[in-house]
Amino acid sequence: MSTDTSGLTQLGQSTDLPQTPEEAVLERVPQPRKGERYLVRFTAPEFTSLCPLTGQPDFAHIMIDYVPRDWLVESKSLKLFLGAFRNHGAFHEDCSVMIGQRLRDLLEPEWLRIGAYWYPRGGIPIDVFWQSAPKPEDMWIPDQGVPPYRGRG
Amino acid sequence: MSTDTSGLTQLGQSTDLPQTPEEAVLERVPQPRKGERYLVRFTAPEFTSLCPLTGQPDFAHIMIDYVPRDWLVESKSLKLFLGAFRNHGAFHEDCSVMIGQRLRDLLEPEWLRIGAYWYPRGGIPIDVFWQSAPKPEDMWIPDQGVPPYRGRG
Amino acid sequence: MSTDTSGLTQLGQSTDLPQTPEEAVLERVPQPRKGERYLVRFTAPEFTSLCPLTGQPDFAHIMIDYVPRDWLVESKSLKLFLGAFRNHGAFHEDCSVMIGQRLRDLLEPEWLRIGAYWYPRGGIPIDVFWQSAPKPEDMWIPDQGVPPYRGRG
Amino acid sequence: MSTDTSGLTQLGQSTDLPQTPEEAVLERVPQPRKGERYLVRFTAPEFTSLCPLTGQPDFAHIMIDYVPRDWLVESKSLKLFLGAFRNHGAFHEDCSVMIGQRLRDLLEPEWLRIGAYWYPRGGIPIDVFWQSAPKPEDMWIPDQGVPPYRGRG
Amino acid sequence: MSTDTSGLTQLGQSTDLPQTPEEAVLERVPQPRKGERYLVRFTAPEFTSLCPLTGQPDFAHIMIDYVPRDWLVESKSLKLFLGAFRNHGAFHEDCSVMIGQRLRDLLEPEWLRIGAYWYPRGGIPIDVFWQSAPKPEDMWIPDQGVPPYRGRG
Amino acid sequence: MSTDTSGLTQLGQSTDLPQTPEEAVLERVPQPRKGERYLVRFTAPEFTSLCPLTGQPDFAHIMIDYVPRDWLVESKSLKLFLGAFRNHGAFHEDCSVMIGQRLRDLLEPEWLRIGAYWYPRGGIPIDVFWQSAPKPEDMWIPDQGVPPYRGRG
Amino acid sequence: MSTDTSGLTQLGQSTDLPQTPEEAVLERVPQPRKGERYLVRFTAPEFTSLCPLTGQPDFAHIMIDYVPRDWLVESKSLKLFLGAFRNHGAFHEDCSVMIGQRLRDLLEPEWLRIGAYWYPRGGIPIDVFWQSAPKPEDMWIPDQGVPPYRGRG
Amino acid sequence: MSTDTSGLTQLGQSTDLPQTPEEAVLERVPQPRKGERYLVRFTAPEFTSLCPLTGQPDFAHIMIDYVPRDWLVESKSLKLFLGAFRNHGAFHEDCSVMIGQRLRDLLEPEWLRIGAYWYPRGGIPIDVFWQSAPKPEDMWIPDQGVPPYRGRG
Amino acid sequence: MSTDTSGLTQLGQSTDLPQTPEEAVLERVPQPRKGERYLVRFTAPEFTSLCPLTGQPDFAHIMIDYVPRDWLVESKSLKLFLGAFRNHGAFHEDCSVMIGQRLRDLLEPEWLRIGAYWYPRGGIPIDVFWQSAPKPEDMWIPDQGVPPYRGRG
Amino acid sequence: MSTDTSGLTQLGQSTDLPQTPEEAVLERVPQPRKGERYLVRFTAPEFTSLCPLTGQPDFAHIMIDYVPRDWLVESKSLKLFLGAFRNHGAFHEDCSVMIGQRLRDLLEPEWLRIGAYWYPRGGIPIDVFWQSAPKPEDMWIPDQGVPPYRGRG
Ligand SMILES: [Ca+2]
Ligand SMILES: [Ca+2]
Ligand SMILES: [Ca+2]
Ligand SMILES: [Ca+2]
Ligand SMILES: [Ca+2]
Ligand SMILES: [Ca+2]
Ligand SMILES: [Ca+2]
Ligand SMILES: [Ca+2]
Ligand SMILES: [Ca+2]
Ligand SMILES: [Ca+2]
Ligand SMILES: [Ca+2]
Ligand SMILES: [Ca+2]
Ligand SMILES: [Ca+2]
Ligand SMILES: [Ca+2]
Ligand SMILES: [Ca+2]
Ligand SMILES: [Ca+2]
Repeated sequence: MSTDTSGLTQLGQSTDLPQTPEEAVLERVPQPRKGERYLVRFTAPEFTSLCPLTGQPDFAHIMIDYVPRDWLVESKSLKLFLGAFRNHGAFHEDCSVMIGQRLRDLLEPEWLRIGAYWYPRGGIPIDVFWQSAPKPEDMWIPDQGVPPYRGRG
Repeated sequence: MSTDTSGLTQLGQSTDLPQTPEEAVLERVPQPRKGERYLVRFTAPEFTSLCPLTGQPDFAHIMIDYVPRDWLVESKSLKLFLGAFRNHGAFHEDCSVMIGQRLRDLLEPEWLRIGAYWYPRGGIPIDVFWQSAPKPEDMWIPDQGVPPYRGRG
Repeated sequence: MSTDTSGLTQLGQSTDLPQTPEEAVLERVPQPRKGERYLVRFTAPEFTSLCPLTGQPDFAHIMIDYVPRDWLVESKSLKLFLGAFRNHGAFHEDCSVMIGQRLRDLLEPEWLRIGAYWYPRGGIPIDVFWQSAPKPEDMWIPDQGVPPYRGRG
Repeated sequence: MSTDTSGLTQLGQSTDLPQTPEEAVLERVPQPRKGERYLVRFTAPEFTSLCPLTGQPDFAHIMIDYVPRDWLVESKSLKLFLGAFRNHGAFHEDCSVMIGQRLRDLLEPEWLRIGAYWYPRGGIPIDVFWQSAPKPEDMWIPDQGVPPYRGRG
Repeated sequence: MSTDTSGLTQLGQSTDLPQTPEEAVLERVPQPRKGERYLVRFTAPEFTSLCPLTGQPDFAHIMIDYVPRDWLVESKSLKLFLGAFRNHGAFHEDCSVMIGQRLRDLLEPEWLRIGAYWYPRGGIPIDVFWQSAPKPEDMWIPDQGVPPYRGRG
Repeated sequence: MSTDTSGLTQLGQSTDLPQTPEEAVLERVPQPRKGERYLVRFTAPEFTSLCPLTGQPDFAHIMIDYVPRDWLVESKSLKLFLGAFRNHGAFHEDCSVMIGQRLRDLLEPEWLRIGAYWYPRGGIPIDVFWQSAPKPEDMWIPDQGVPPYRGRG
Repeated sequence: MSTDTSGLTQLGQSTDLPQTPEEAVLERVPQPRKGERYLVRFTAPEFTSLCPLTGQPDFAHIMIDYVPRDWLVESKSLKLFLGAFRNHGAFHEDCSVMIGQRLRDLLEPEWLRIGAYWYPRGGIPIDVFWQSAPKPEDMWIPDQGVPPYRGRG
Repeated sequence: MSTDTSGLTQLGQSTDLPQTPEEAVLERVPQPRKGERYLVRFTAPEFTSLCPLTGQPDFAHIMIDYVPRDWLVESKSLKLFLGAFRNHGAFHEDCSVMIGQRLRDLLEPEWLRIGAYWYPRGGIPIDVFWQSAPKPEDMWIPDQGVPPYRGRG
Repeated sequence: MSTDTSGLTQLGQSTDLPQTPEEAVLERVPQPRKGERYLVRFTAPEFTSLCPLTGQPDFAHIMIDYVPRDWLVESKSLKLFLGAFRNHGAFHEDCSVMIGQRLRDLLEPEWLRIGAYWYPRGGIPIDVFWQSAPKPEDMWIPDQGVPPYRGRG
Repeated sequence: MSTDTSGLTQLGQSTDLPQTPEEAVLERVPQPRKGERYLVRFTAPEFTSLCPLTGQPDFAHIMIDYVPRDWLVESKSLKLFLGAFRNHGAFHEDCSVMIGQRLRDLLEPEWLRIGAYWYPRGGIPIDVFWQSAPKPEDMWIPDQGVPPYRGRG
């Protein structure tokens, strides 16, 4: 197996959900295909945070695309990090961009973007689209393809 | 043309939207195929009323199925009747059933039902399904086929 | 080939569109699988007639299901019959049931039904569902499966 | 407005999310259309609880159908009740049926059912379907229509 | 392996496409789960025959459902049988029912049905639905679920 | 929480629907992720205005995309602004572009666009697509992805 | 209301369907948002003409996109113009491009295109895509998004 | 937590995939909602076995529905059981029914069914539908809703 | 009618299916809108050929896009040409490109492409995408939009 | 037949599944349309490998696009190669890129890419997108069009 997982602290362990995004430990592994550029996409339909004003739960469908340089995010730590927003309050725009910034800082990727598709409040969903840099030239970056919100009928 | 439209007051006229459902004049025409039983379905995705507590607009996708006996509802008057809820406040359950009762009283149909698919409030849409009587035997009554609400993603 | 097409006047001929439904000659052929009961379904998304009040064109997606007894409808004559509504004015309910009655009278089938899915006028489409008799027992009659009208979005 | 909302303690108030399902106060209002039988459907795609063994979050899409007798559930209290599972741990089957039982005990409805569509774990989602009693005769109870889980591709 | 394939002449052989449905050798194997009733469904979107009048190709999507008694159809022989219609001319209704009859005679199943969804000619597709007997009680027979033809747009 | 909501007059208040778009107070908050460029998308399927000639209601599905510079639109004020078209009469093209201009003037965004998908009138829906400036380079701007109107069938 | 409709001859009038496209009077109104560039899209799923060789009806789903300069097409006159093809015979390619040319000549738009999605004949639908000029730079021109024809199954 | 998981040998353990279905240990837990009848549905799109004749891999999408009496299947053991078919060779019909029989024998449920949707071989997929007993009266048993196979286009 | 069909040998004739693609006579007509550039798209879901190694039938969904210069392909001759592959054996890649080359040589179009979506063999469909030249600048060339193959589930 | 298949060792043979990707013999044939550039797409929804840490099965939907220079991959050898991952353990990212590298080395294509859509683990699927070189200019390379993962509901 060509991926080095030494040094990881959470993979293969029973791990409690971190209390806050700040407490969550995002981990990384060396990317195993040195010299190749490729896109990695995570789709996380199980995201929830709290409204900063009312404390009521908010929900989002989150998609993360990145082009690694030296590191891959370790997927269990990503799951725990996203789970740590469970009791965190922030506006949709704020929260979505924060996820992107944390991953950018950890992975130092060539490029990273976040698509955050929030469930409707007041009948109107908000989506947030952020990227760490201009889309790389000569890469293959498919659309995220989330269908528009339609209301009913 | 075999449908008798004499006696109608709104069809072919320029008519203002009635102020309330009570003011709206639902009209009927003799059903033109005496001796045949059939189902008539109206699909009204353009329904809006007001929340009785907050005055904020509510929206619904409304479907009406009925088996006429002697009368058809005249479709322009139906459109104006539904439009008259625009400034009317009532709970979803209350409002949906009221539409059914008005049509039942006007048309004295063999059978009539209302499917009301309300847009989400607080993340949770409400649907209301009412019928005037048990579903007639030996009739063809297709499903209304509205897909479930899915949130995002 | 086991289907007797002798006696047909339109099949394999160049035939003008009939001017009215009354003029159209619906033709029939002996059904080739005597002793078997089965359902035949025609789907006609290319139907148009005129509004009896305004003369404006109406459009419908029409589905016809029937269980033959001795006769099949010859499909070219059916196409010409449906095409003959092109300059015919009638209410949606009237027109839909009329198609069913003509076919029932020609074919003397065990059972026949019409699903007529009209394009919206005033934002509200009308569907009409008619059958010649109660649905036969012990037959296989799939749903027509037309999705509900959704407006936009 | 024909719905009596007196006696409600949460509607129109700023209310914190209850800590547990047990603490949550489900409230009811008199149903406003006495003498009519109809189905009320809630679709709650924003449900989350915890795995009782690992403490990791679980997610579900929950649909609730009921035929009221004297009471409607007040929708804000329902939202708070469902939100109270946020820190509650139980197996999928256990949790789904519990929701149904609480609502049945509160509303004493003619009939109530829960469809719980859980997000996949180990590649295999679990759905739970429960009802309080046999499906009522002569009522209109549409399918919930949730599409099957498909994996990828 | 519990299925007896002795006596088969085509499975595991290189076999030419039969010239006609009559020449095709449909084969059967003993059903391996004696005492159990179950439904077997074949979906054959690759069916083509010839128009008996013009010799032009026709295409259909064919679905076959059956409840075996003692025999299963051997799937390679079924494929060759269906392929043998490639140069066979017959009306849609005739051809569809013939497939059902051949399989019924070979398999002596408890029940068998054919859904034949033909590609449109003259803008109007024909579907044919045939079954060998009334649908068995107490069996699970899902809908075939083919969506209606929609034309364009 | 990093978003400054001081100075807002409607958020967290019970607020009546404004009588006209002109009366509606669109509010803004400082964007909380200074130095980052991202796209914010609102999807508003609950839009209704009046026909300027007939006074009949029109409906639209509205999508708003923008790249903030210093300001975010406060979402409750956006909802009230859109709700204020409820009694406003204007042509589809006029009304759609007006929404864009109001938001552009308030937010002084890097870029903003409106997609307005109007429900059909006379069988033909109108969509309007407007943007405040050429699409920014090096940003991620997904398609709005609204499916085409299909009529029936 | 900011759109000048003086000078129109058909809007708000009862108007017969013109006999030919040549007779149809396409009308225009001044575009109300001077100085703004935007795209207007019409979707007309109710188009029918005649085959020039056989006189049989043809059907198409037509989409029209344009960027106005000084004029908008008045939508009722567009509907009448499209309706006037009802008794007009022309090849698909010819007819589709003719619509585009008429609109271009009337509106002198910055840019205009026609997507014509014809219903299948002989099993093979034809689509025609025409534009008056290269696609404008720096405009937002969404895909028309019509799904491909699939035949059956 | 009301579900008794004592006596389980695999849950919460690191467990190798069993070599054969016979070796796999299906485990059960007491069902936690005694006195309630409900349906539990597992959807397993990750099923693979081997062709008994050629040794080539086969794939299926498997759905399992059951009404528990005293026991629930423990979901990790179910996953391992299904995974154990990875190196097992059997005909589609044989294999599908075998899964049902094993679960029926373990769980002694009121009712259990298997829907097995196999990937196409020779262009023709096979589906198998089996149930342990007639469908229970007065239960809610939704369709499995898998769409038909369509080939391409 | 502005399209010159003189010189055609097959249109309006009863014509046998040609025995081979080589024998098939592809015909052309002068394109009727001289001076306009536009795209013509044919969608042919009814394509079948033979496997060159085994003689078994293959099926494909074929889409043809081209920008005419002086000629249009006559659609009946295209249908006969495609039908002539019925008894022709060639690899998918070979066959798909051959169609394109024949049309290019006949029509001398500005540009032409073929999308060939073959039904799966061995569980894996092959698609072939060929074009005669780089995509023309300043033309409108919509995606062909065929959805990916999904297997089952 | 214009494709040279001499020298192939597996096509038309009964061949066991190779034990590892390393053992698998990927074979190539001369591409039959010298001088033409085209895209070949394989869609492989039947891919499975093992998790390198736990030995549990993983599943993916794999799509391969390439522009051949002198060689085509022989499709049976590709199927066997992909099947050989059945007992191979590697991270998703590692495994996906490895497939691409093997094919690139064999085929020396002008360009090749892999889209690997993995089934969810821990609720979060991973997709990997890799290409051998920048996307060729002036080629037609359609999107792969896989819809996003949606969870449930
Ligand atoms: Ca709607
Ligand atoms: Ca909401
Ligand atoms: Ca049904
Ligand atoms: Ca979701
Ligand atoms: Ca059904
Ligand atoms: Ca909508
Ligand atoms: Ca149903
Ligand atoms: Ca799949
Ligand atoms: Ca259409
Ligand atoms: Ca696009
Ligand atoms: Ca249609
Ligand atoms: Ca098909
Ligand atoms: Ca059902
Ligand atoms: Ca197809
Ligand atoms: Ca695209
Ligand atoms: Ca969901």
